[in-house]
Amino acid sequence: MTEPTTAWTMTSHSDVLELWRKQVDAKLETCLRSQPESRLRDAMAYSLLAPGKRVRPLLAMAACDALGGEAVHALPAACALEMIHAYSLIHDDLPAMDDDALRRGRPTCHIQYDEATAILAGDALQTLAFETLAEAPVRPLDVVRLLRILARASGASGMAVGQAWDMEATDQAVDLDTLQRIHRHKTGALIQASLEMGGIIAGADETSMARLGQLGKHLGLAFQIQDDILDETADTATLGKAAGQDRAHNKSTYVRLLGLSGAEHKAQDELTGAAHCLKQLAADDRPLACLVDQLARRAR
Amino acid sequence: MTEPTTAWTMTSHSDVLELWRKQVDAKLETCLRSQPESRLRDAMAYSLLAPGKRVRPLLAMAACDALGGEAVHALPAACALEMIHAYSLIHDDLPAMDDDALRRGRPTCHIQYDEATAILAGDALQTLAFETLAEAPVRPLDVVRLLRILARASGASGMAVGQAWDMEATDQAVDLDTLQRIHRHKTGALIQASLEMGGIIAGADETSMARLGQLGKHLGLAFQIQDDILDETADTATLGKAAGQDRAHNKSTYVRLLGLSGAEHKAQDELTGAAHCLKQLAADDRPLACLVDQLARRAR
Repeated sequence: MTEPTTAWTMTSHSDVLELWRKQVDAKLETCLRSQPESRLRDAMAYSLLAPGKRVRPLLAMAACDALGGEAVHALPAACALEMIHAYSLIHDDLPAMDDDALRRGRPTCHIQYDEATAILAGDALQTLAFETLAEAPVRPLDVVRLLRILARASGASGMAVGQAWDMEATDQAVDLDTLQRIHRHKTGALIQASLEMGGIIAGADETSMARLGQLGKHLGLAFQIQDDILDETADTATLGKAAGQDRAHNKSTYVRLLGLSGAEHKAQDELTGAAHCLKQLAADDRPLACLVDQLARRAR
Repeated sequence: MTEPTTAWTMTSHSDVLELWRKQVDAKLETCLRSQPESRLRDAMAYSLLAPGKRVRPLLAMAACDALGGEAVHALPAACALEMIHAYSLIHDDLPAMDDDALRRGRPTCHIQYDEATAILAGDALQTLAFETLAEAPVRPLDVVRLLRILARASGASGMAVGQAWDMEATDQAVDLDTLQRIHRHKTGALIQASLEMGGIIAGADETSMARLGQLGKHLGLAFQIQDDILDETADTATLGKAAGQDRAHNKSTYVRLLGLSGAEHKAQDELTGAAHCLKQLAADDRPLACLVDQLARRAR
């Protein structure tokens, strides 16, 4: 028997990620089934169980694994993160917000159901996120730490205020600093929280927690820049949602501020920073590195 | 010096309740100030700090006090309850839901700001509720219990599903059992959670917890019936919101199903049940009894 090559290991890591993705989907379904049957629950399931990359859950599980924990212990936190993400998509798509009719290749929640149901489905998914977090198989003290991280990353000091600033910035000339501040909150905070929550579940020390936070900052920014690039360059069928929406809504994006090639360079810089963090975490050869690599390849 | 008479005690209890109400308002303001300045935070403050009875916070503090705890220890949980309540009002008032322009005598959040901001303000208030709960000065294990109770009472197995069922029941003939099931979820669950959360903070035993739960069931139902009665009998100025909305929206109410006097009798039955629970809890002469009395008098 020879040692597995790096290529082999990466294939194996991507199998592991695929397994985790299935575990996340199964757990999301179980969480929903614990709620009483209702049209509301159907609408929650419609959006939450729609095929997706499960980026945030996988980041939490992979970070937990990379820091020496059992990935499966991160499942409740992973699902909580996906529920927060799903609720934010439902509400972002509403007519009063981005007014999108298509998401992940299917009608958005308020199109498939109705606006009132979509508002409530988003609300109840946020609640279910916190309920699910309470199941995390860690010391109660660590559940409380997870609770704090998730809440701060998603509310008026995180995702929600990022979304609010983003709306205010529409039709306005916005500089790079402001754009970064918006996205650090709107998308970055939850990405960073995903990694940190995985770290807490693994019982990571403070140094590792800080490195996970740094990794999250790089990844969050890289993904947002990629989204901006894809919105400009990909078509609706590839995206699974309407393309060209940023331009249509006159939104400030990295592509508008830096040009396409400038944005691509900036994304690459962030990914290089992420690779450095992975090395510091001694996670180069863990599923976490494979996941980061998969996500980085979206932009190419 | 003679012993204080019951009347004197009740006055003193209502002073205590007034003090607690001020503590709640002060703490709500502190919680908001911990969030970064934004139009979003302004909208959250607009709705959360609007003058209100603070029924749920006071129930939590009074239950904690009645079960031998320090009421002030219940402040974070009390504020979390008010934030959940405030978020649900903002979203219920949206055009896609009840489409109300007036609340607590002032323009509703989406009228004062805009629809998108109102959606986000509700979202972020729910998040802030869970963040605030994490501050409860109890053992982490009890924070997790509080988290579970609050989430179950407000999400797809509580308030949110009650609201969804209520919408489905509009324009439909609904029997008394269905109406009670709707209201047990829509308003009852959070009232019951308020008392139970106060009990947990006081370190109440299982028997007392069950009695608090029972008290909550009676009060929740009594308040809802009173709301139905007031919607029918009071004017807009008294209510601080548009009167006659149930009839205008063709909603099933206790008044429609039982008639005005039947509904009044039913409310009285529930209040009698509540009084029995208070006696069992040996809380007849605590601020909790005074609070129940104040709330009961709304309907007369």
